[in-house]
Amino acid sequence: MGKKFKTRYQIPFYESDVNHNVKLPHILSVALQIASDQSVSLGLGDERIFKDYNLVWVVSEHEVTIDRLPRFNEIVEIETEPISYNRYFCYREFRIYDQNGEKLVDIFSTFVLMDYDTRRVHDVPEDLVAPYESEKIRKILRGPKYKALEKATDTLYHVRYFDLDINGHVNNSRYLEWMYDVLDFNFLKAYTPKKINLKYVKEVQYGSDIESRLEQDGLITKHEITSNGYVNAQAITQWEKI
Amino acid sequence: MGKKFKTRYQIPFYESDVNHNVKLPHILSVALQIASDQSVSLGLGDERIFKDYNLVWVVSEHEVTIDRLPRFNEIVEIETEPISYNRYFCYREFRIYDQNGEKLVDIFSTFVLMDYDTRRVHDVPEDLVAPYESEKIRKILRGPKYKALEKATDTLYHVRYFDLDINGHVNNSRYLEWMYDVLDFNFLKAYTPKKINLKYVKEVQYGSDIESRLEQDGLITKHEITSNGYVNAQAITQWEKI
Repeated sequence: MGKKFKTRYQIPFYESDVNHNVKLPHILSVALQIASDQSVSLGLGDERIFKDYNLVWVVSEHEVTIDRLPRFNEIVEIETEPISYNRYFCYREFRIYDQNGEKLVDIFSTFVLMDYDTRRVHDVPEDLVAPYESEKIRKILRGPKYKALEKATDTLYHVRYFDLDINGHVNNSRYLEWMYDVLDFNFLKAYTPKKINLKYVKEVQYGSDIESRLEQDGLITKHEITSNGYVNAQAITQWEKI
Repeated sequence: MGKKFKTRYQIPFYESDVNHNVKLPHILSVALQIASDQSVSLGLGDERIFKDYNLVWVVSEHEVTIDRLPRFNEIVEIETEPISYNRYFCYREFRIYDQNGEKLVDIFSTFVLMDYDTRRVHDVPEDLVAPYESEKIRKILRGPKYKALEKATDTLYHVRYFDLDINGHVNNSRYLEWMYDVLDFNFLKAYTPKKINLKYVKEVQYGSDIESRLEQDGLITKHEITSNGYVNAQAITQWEKI
């Protein structure tokens, strides 16, 4: 098991939804920020690995398990731990606890290192991951199979200026915003996500229009983000009545 | 002069733009959060004034003056001070300082108290504002005249689920997002806002489509958000080459 890193976080007003819960995409943004903060604390910030290795971290998949979402104004503790890695993938867990130490949310995330010039996945350098003290494994941990959606409804979105990050890429959290925005308002008011599997396949480009595609089967929703004939992201969510 | 309240804030990755500056709408969100934190610290949080007075705080106008925008990862100090009030309006200033104590941004904001049932502006109760120790004035401080736009280009936006706050209202920061998103990408990369006047006229309703209207005259941009034949918000921005 790897080196843990913790921070306290209070859910702000502007990131709380109509159910008084944190907006789920925000939790993913905060998690990635904390992973980055840990890297900086170990002397392995993004600038350093770009300069020394010409590599950038890219998240490829999340599995989010929710007991209950943190609520508006609630102070939570967010812990992250680099769990293991193999030749190409690094696995990291995030755990969100309430003030009584009860676990609210668990996020299991898969990262790869991409070569900045070739845009291809690069082998994980041993000296780069050593300070995290995570376990080297041979096994590749796989998420669920995301089947192509065949009877989906499509909704068009335009990529906006404020969707972009400092590198000109679409923020990871936007994909989930597009996915959930197509759900019916009354459904979102009455149901809460319990488990989300989310896979990033191919980056959306600025200036593109994207389709947010939805298939809903009772308490399971299946999502695709597509643009220019490609699948950019896929997700499966299990919901529960509030 | 009123009671000051300060907090430190580090600009997160997910709220930084392609120029490595904080996204301007985010600064307005954080400012309102800090005003609310001060109210809570004085025992005058939103829940209390709703319960005791049936009132809610509504921001009606901002004047933002920018020396430079806080940058990605920068730690800033944000100070707020309730300056003065008259029969209907409360004036509050926000000041953002860098680590050397240099002022980066100044926001002068106007608030009103709205009766929750009648949705009308309510007189400011003396006992409610007393703890802030701001000055009582007779004068009404007015922002600029925002003339109706006559030769504007219009761009359509749909109000999204995650645009809504815990009360089901569109987040204040979204108006500025819609206003700036219609500007040309190359303009936003090459120019930075120096002064923004922003006025909230009428709340946008969920389910509405809105028009983001723009008139650009060199380094001055004029903006309107309209829906269903009404003006919802107006702004004037002065820009400067980066």
